[in-house]
Amino acid sequence: MVKFHKTASKKKGLPPGAVIYQEGPMAKPIISVFDYSSDSFSEKTSVSKEELYACKSSATVSWINIDTLEDARFIEDLCVHFGINPLTIEDILNNEQRPKIELFDSYIYVVLKTLEYFPQQGTLQTEQVSILLGSNYVITFQERPGDSFDPIRLRLRKDSSLIRKEGTDYLLYALLDTIVDQYFLIFEDIGDSLESMEDDLLAGKTHFSYKRLYMLKRELILMRKSIWPLRELVGRLQKEHVPFIDPKTRVYFGDVNDHTIRILDTIDTYKDMLMSMVDLYQSSINNRMNQVMKVLTIISTIFIPLSFIAGVYGMNFDNMPELSTKYGYHITVSTMLVLALVMLGFFRRKGWL
Amino acid sequence: MVKFHKTASKKKGLPPGAVIYQEGPMAKPIISVFDYSSDSFSEKTSVSKEELYACKSSATVSWINIDTLEDARFIEDLCVHFGINPLTIEDILNNEQRPKIELFDSYIYVVLKTLEYFPQQGTLQTEQVSILLGSNYVITFQERPGDSFDPIRLRLRKDSSLIRKEGTDYLLYALLDTIVDQYFLIFEDIGDSLESMEDDLLAGKTHFSYKRLYMLKRELILMRKSIWPLRELVGRLQKEHVPFIDPKTRVYFGDVNDHTIRILDTIDTYKDMLMSMVDLYQSSINNRMNQVMKVLTIISTIFIPLSFIAGVYGMNFDNMPELSTKYGYHITVSTMLVLALVMLGFFRRKGWL
Amino acid sequence: MVKFHKTASKKKGLPPGAVIYQEGPMAKPIISVFDYSSDSFSEKTSVSKEELYACKSSATVSWINIDTLEDARFIEDLCVHFGINPLTIEDILNNEQRPKIELFDSYIYVVLKTLEYFPQQGTLQTEQVSILLGSNYVITFQERPGDSFDPIRLRLRKDSSLIRKEGTDYLLYALLDTIVDQYFLIFEDIGDSLESMEDDLLAGKTHFSYKRLYMLKRELILMRKSIWPLRELVGRLQKEHVPFIDPKTRVYFGDVNDHTIRILDTIDTYKDMLMSMVDLYQSSINNRMNQVMKVLTIISTIFIPLSFIAGVYGMNFDNMPELSTKYGYHITVSTMLVLALVMLGFFRRKGWL
Amino acid sequence: MVKFHKTASKKKGLPPGAVIYQEGPMAKPIISVFDYSSDSFSEKTSVSKEELYACKSSATVSWINIDTLEDARFIEDLCVHFGINPLTIEDILNNEQRPKIELFDSYIYVVLKTLEYFPQQGTLQTEQVSILLGSNYVITFQERPGDSFDPIRLRLRKDSSLIRKEGTDYLLYALLDTIVDQYFLIFEDIGDSLESMEDDLLAGKTHFSYKRLYMLKRELILMRKSIWPLRELVGRLQKEHVPFIDPKTRVYFGDVNDHTIRILDTIDTYKDMLMSMVDLYQSSINNRMNQVMKVLTIISTIFIPLSFIAGVYGMNFDNMPELSTKYGYHITVSTMLVLALVMLGFFRRKGWL
Amino acid sequence: MVKFHKTASKKKGLPPGAVIYQEGPMAKPIISVFDYSSDSFSEKTSVSKEELYACKSSATVSWINIDTLEDARFIEDLCVHFGINPLTIEDILNNEQRPKIELFDSYIYVVLKTLEYFPQQGTLQTEQVSILLGSNYVITFQERPGDSFDPIRLRLRKDSSLIRKEGTDYLLYALLDTIVDQYFLIFEDIGDSLESMEDDLLAGKTHFSYKRLYMLKRELILMRKSIWPLRELVGRLQKEHVPFIDPKTRVYFGDVNDHTIRILDTIDTYKDMLMSMVDLYQSSINNRMNQVMKVLTIISTIFIPLSFIAGVYGMNFDNMPELSTKYGYHITVSTMLVLALVMLGFFRRKGWL
Repeated sequence: MVKFHKTASKKKGLPPGAVIYQEGPMAKPIISVFDYSSDSFSEKTSVSKEELYACKSSATVSWINIDTLEDARFIEDLCVHFGINPLTIEDILNNEQRPKIELFDSYIYVVLKTLEYFPQQGTLQTEQVSILLGSNYVITFQERPGDSFDPIRLRLRKDSSLIRKEGTDYLLYALLDTIVDQYFLIFEDIGDSLESMEDDLLAGKTHFSYKRLYMLKRELILMRKSIWPLRELVGRLQKEHVPFIDPKTRVYFGDVNDHTIRILDTIDTYKDMLMSMVDLYQSSINNRMNQVMKVLTIISTIFIPLSFIAGVYGMNFDNMPELSTKYGYHITVSTMLVLALVMLGFFRRKGWL
Repeated sequence: MVKFHKTASKKKGLPPGAVIYQEGPMAKPIISVFDYSSDSFSEKTSVSKEELYACKSSATVSWINIDTLEDARFIEDLCVHFGINPLTIEDILNNEQRPKIELFDSYIYVVLKTLEYFPQQGTLQTEQVSILLGSNYVITFQERPGDSFDPIRLRLRKDSSLIRKEGTDYLLYALLDTIVDQYFLIFEDIGDSLESMEDDLLAGKTHFSYKRLYMLKRELILMRKSIWPLRELVGRLQKEHVPFIDPKTRVYFGDVNDHTIRILDTIDTYKDMLMSMVDLYQSSINNRMNQVMKVLTIISTIFIPLSFIAGVYGMNFDNMPELSTKYGYHITVSTMLVLALVMLGFFRRKGWL
Repeated sequence: MVKFHKTASKKKGLPPGAVIYQEGPMAKPIISVFDYSSDSFSEKTSVSKEELYACKSSATVSWINIDTLEDARFIEDLCVHFGINPLTIEDILNNEQRPKIELFDSYIYVVLKTLEYFPQQGTLQTEQVSILLGSNYVITFQERPGDSFDPIRLRLRKDSSLIRKEGTDYLLYALLDTIVDQYFLIFEDIGDSLESMEDDLLAGKTHFSYKRLYMLKRELILMRKSIWPLRELVGRLQKEHVPFIDPKTRVYFGDVNDHTIRILDTIDTYKDMLMSMVDLYQSSINNRMNQVMKVLTIISTIFIPLSFIAGVYGMNFDNMPELSTKYGYHITVSTMLVLALVMLGFFRRKGWL
Repeated sequence: MVKFHKTASKKKGLPPGAVIYQEGPMAKPIISVFDYSSDSFSEKTSVSKEELYACKSSATVSWINIDTLEDARFIEDLCVHFGINPLTIEDILNNEQRPKIELFDSYIYVVLKTLEYFPQQGTLQTEQVSILLGSNYVITFQERPGDSFDPIRLRLRKDSSLIRKEGTDYLLYALLDTIVDQYFLIFEDIGDSLESMEDDLLAGKTHFSYKRLYMLKRELILMRKSIWPLRELVGRLQKEHVPFIDPKTRVYFGDVNDHTIRILDTIDTYKDMLMSMVDLYQSSINNRMNQVMKVLTIISTIFIPLSFIAGVYGMNFDNMPELSTKYGYHITVSTMLVLALVMLGFFRRKGWL
Repeated sequence: MVKFHKTASKKKGLPPGAVIYQEGPMAKPIISVFDYSSDSFSEKTSVSKEELYACKSSATVSWINIDTLEDARFIEDLCVHFGINPLTIEDILNNEQRPKIELFDSYIYVVLKTLEYFPQQGTLQTEQVSILLGSNYVITFQERPGDSFDPIRLRLRKDSSLIRKEGTDYLLYALLDTIVDQYFLIFEDIGDSLESMEDDLLAGKTHFSYKRLYMLKRELILMRKSIWPLRELVGRLQKEHVPFIDPKTRVYFGDVNDHTIRILDTIDTYKDMLMSMVDLYQSSINNRMNQVMKVLTIISTIFIPLSFIAGVYGMNFDNMPELSTKYGYHITVSTMLVLALVMLGFFRRKGWL
């Protein structure tokens, strides 16, 4: 389950750009570097600090990917070397950012969320991805080691790949596109959940629980919060003049923008569907309640008067003339039968049967 | 029933413009070509690849209609020949597009949805239509073979038709107009459903089910999702300077825009009406529940005390003086009668009868 | 009751501006012509086609009013003579238009709705009014013969009338003003209905039916749909440069705009009030339900245990010592009385009595 | 209680600016005139028509206040003398205006509402105030004689007052500020009502009636309708170039604007609070209903089976072996007791006790 | 608990900028002055009026902090010395301001709210902070003495602090940043409350009370009211040209803006979550009600007919043949058992068991 909030308390009152260094043992950052141009390509997974720092001034395009952010000092040093603003460094290290894009003189900073959905538990996990884009390097930071960017790695390794021929702006596009494509996969799962719920509801499955609807609504609210700001981010990349972004790459960002809008449309449609389902659910609950009440009323209304008649002739008065007539009992029982039938007729006419 | 989503998973991680070629047997595309100018006209249904490719440079207006998209390779080849951007080709082949218009140097790409409504099942079917517009050709792609464009074909075959005298922009208008006109037909059916539901509700039909309201609301939500983006699309054709669109054709797109806005207005009105009906439905359910409760309460409240009295005189105490009086029984029964009448009077005063 | 929709099916697939000629007997159009300038005035009700067509080039201001639109051929011919665009002719003949204004080189086309409200049935009837405005003529088309424009006719007949001194733009203003003034009359009726409902609700009238609220909400939804687009229409007449409209007439359109906004404000306020009333209604229903339940619970809770005691002493065991005691009966009955009083006390403490 | 609407019917079909003269006896207008400049001051309450008319061309600032609008002819004559447009005169005399500002060449017309709240009855009364502002005069029209403007009169009488030193624009500011300040007073009363309701609700007072919430919501809806358009009005005075308003006075209108926005914020907050209270109210009603049902269910569920057992042994079969056993009665009664205890345990486990 | 409103009544009818001097004993203002430049620093807590006034023309940056606003005369004198507009002085002394920024020639006025949350009582306390920013001084006014700004004081005392090197605009940023950081702390507490409520709800805790949801919703409404206007305020500091704000400081205000938007996003998400929880709560209440009804119905439906049978054979007719048969009793009891089992089967089939 996505947490509503994370901890901000440690930062209170610190100057801007202040980095909090974690104490005790911490995960070492996992680093991979792709160096490529249209006619060269190298991939390294264990790099020295010097090699890493050299990427800043190499002629080729360098993509540095860093997993786990616990070693704050390492990340800070790296960023300082690349001339990153302290406010940006603080944002990279704080995993509570709202997706946004910030333009600086020597680089662009993009931060957004990847999502992972576990349909069994009905829960959603977000991870923050920070991207720094310079003229000849792209640095990506991920909270946890993962395989989100594997498709891009596969493409990079192919000689004929378009990525290899283009600059850092195209790599940025490929990264955004991969992340947004993952959203679609999640929507498939959520759509499946929605449809199976709808089927259950329409079939009047009695074990259907409101909690399932609640959990799904909850996830949609949190997804919308994560994805909504993307619209503005990608819109700027498509429409504004942004440094390091070649105007001819904008058509690609337009494609990503399109996908983002489609996803937000889908979230809204899903929310509308969910609201309708809640109404449907409540109507089915009310119907069942109604039915329960009807059974109670029919049974009570038929037998209470009959029991009363039986009660009357169960009284012990000495002088009750009916008791000693020959067919008193038979007449009474017949009367009861007639009464019951009259009532059943009344209920049928009311449409309760 | 419209599915909430379709499958995106196969595309994940592929480069932009990547085409997925379907394996195994697949439907052959159905091709028809109309070639016309103000003084010539030809219609072909079986065309060779060469004839098709020749349309690109012919002096006449060519309308190529292609049904079924399964043969991706054929479509890709055709598009490449006409100089279509890979991103556009990907969009044509993926039937999950949001209605939109995209301007390129050598063509315009328009994608939108046709709708079909089956009132019996209360379900809606969408189909994606892609339109490529060049200076002297229009290519339309449909998911399934169908008769949506037959009215235009009929008009084209008439010598006196206005379409024959105009260029590709007027053909685009005719296509959009035909699709939007189909929406109106669907709205007639939905309006009929709404009115018959309203009649049933106001007449207090007891068999009325909330599911009917739900199904209709569902369809409206999905229709709105399909039609809403059209507003922007057609608005741009009417108001902006768009290549290949003659400014004097804009008045026609203004007409389509007008229809689109009317449809969206109607969807909103229908949604408002549906919401009111849901309230009406719930109020009628509550009323019926109330009535059931009242019957139960009246019967119980009258007979429970009477049964109690009967119970008292059914006790077997040796010393119960009333039992041996001569008119004890008659007095008791009369008292019960009076009590019952008093209660009925009380209920009448409360307005429960 | 306003229909949700009207028939569009006949038009499908026809070229733009296509007119459908009604078959069989049809109502003849009722024509009246007012010809006036600051020093001349003539009013004719039976005019020849030639006289009608002559209005196009007369020096005076001509107001041609045409009631009933069934004779499509007559209207088409007239429009063609006045140089009206086929799309406009189609709009005039189709009574499903959204209120709008369209500017052409030689005329302005304005279309809007008049409303009539029948408080007894609680229903609303709309009629479409089309207005063509040229430099020296105004042509109005109404669906049914009616007296909506009688106040203007009366004013025109007076020598001193301001209308007689002004051009066609002022006549347009007078027409719009008259139509909008009629909306106010309807709002008085609806306001009266709302207030009488509110009084009934607050007085807790038990016969109050949710259907009354529903019918009123329905009418408000449909009125809003008819009036909302007026805002834009009149706003353009007030603020934009519109051909044939003298800038000094704009202050009058500003007045109409003001009225339109007031009406829309009122519709929104009425809708808010209605929503509050629905809540009030449901709360009163719930309260009554609650009261019914309380009566049932009190009666049941008091008598069920007492009946049980009576039942115990109605058992026929041979060995029931209490039965043969002298005051057993009296003690039992007294116990029952005490028990009943204790329960009443409990209910009073709970606030149920 | 504020009426939903007032009568518009008399005006239908009259030309613009038409004044309806009231027949029969009518209230004479109450006139007061303040004439002042930085070094002169005079206050008159009985003025001749000539003195009144002279204000138009005097060098000093003149504030003419007129209470009661029944003498339409007097007001019309006065306005005509001051060169007021007939449309404005019509607006002054019709107390149904929406707050607005209208700019003319020789004057500004401002119309808005004063509010009075009667917490005992929970009702709200509005009054229309029209203000005409020329270069050297301000004329205010009020529906009823009242003391709304007394604070300004007091300030004017003081030599040192800032108003005396400034022109008509500052007087306009002072009038608006006084009216808006009165809104704050009303909000205090409404805030008090809200808080006392909230206290009652949270304390679970059973006599709490939904009508109180309804009445308050109703007043908020109507207040919002009266105050909302003020925002635009004052915003224009602050931000646009308006004739007769010195740019350096704009900072004061900014202050009024600020207050207006605060009031509208507060209305929205109050509406949100009210909605939450409605939910809280309904939840408390449901809780009480639930409790009633539980008591009924517990009593019924315990005693109905016990009564059944008693009923069985009250049957009169000749051959019922249990009846003649020595301890049959004691065993039966003990069994009943055990059964009752078992059920109580069950209810406790269910959390119903 | 935050009060809905505070008292405005005292101000009614006073001229703008009028200051109300509190009578009787009042809290003396607590003053602290920080004087610093990149190479000097002094901190004073007891300052004479002369020292205070000298700050206006000193070359260093002076930060004057004043706690408690009761001594209105002192504050007025101070402000007058610094050339503050009377309207601003009125705003400083009235703790009902909406957060806003106002630009004057010689200073900027910023007013906003600090918040304090008490999770135990679930209540929120707001305090108004006014900030005056000149070219070389910043004056802050707080309603109550408190430690909100202590982090800034700590940073100022450090030689290496960035604040010491920058001007008044950076100090303003530091103040805003500190206040906004406090909001995050509150959100952590509220998020914790939300999560614990959600856990309780999902676990179906029966003691869960709607009041908890209500109290939280109430606080969110009031927080939103306090924080919403901040967005505009900080947005102006970031994007517009504001006097005394160095363009290169804007990136810092961008950071604060970012935080503000994140907080507002979070409020909206929390409100959405709360609404979903309310639905979940009501659904759980309905479920429990349903269960109660089912138990009642099952018990009643089984035993009422059985009791009726017992009642019949408890009648005292002389001639009841069944009574004298040998196994009449056994047959009757067996029939009852069978009937009970049949009913249980029926309920199981209905899914009620």
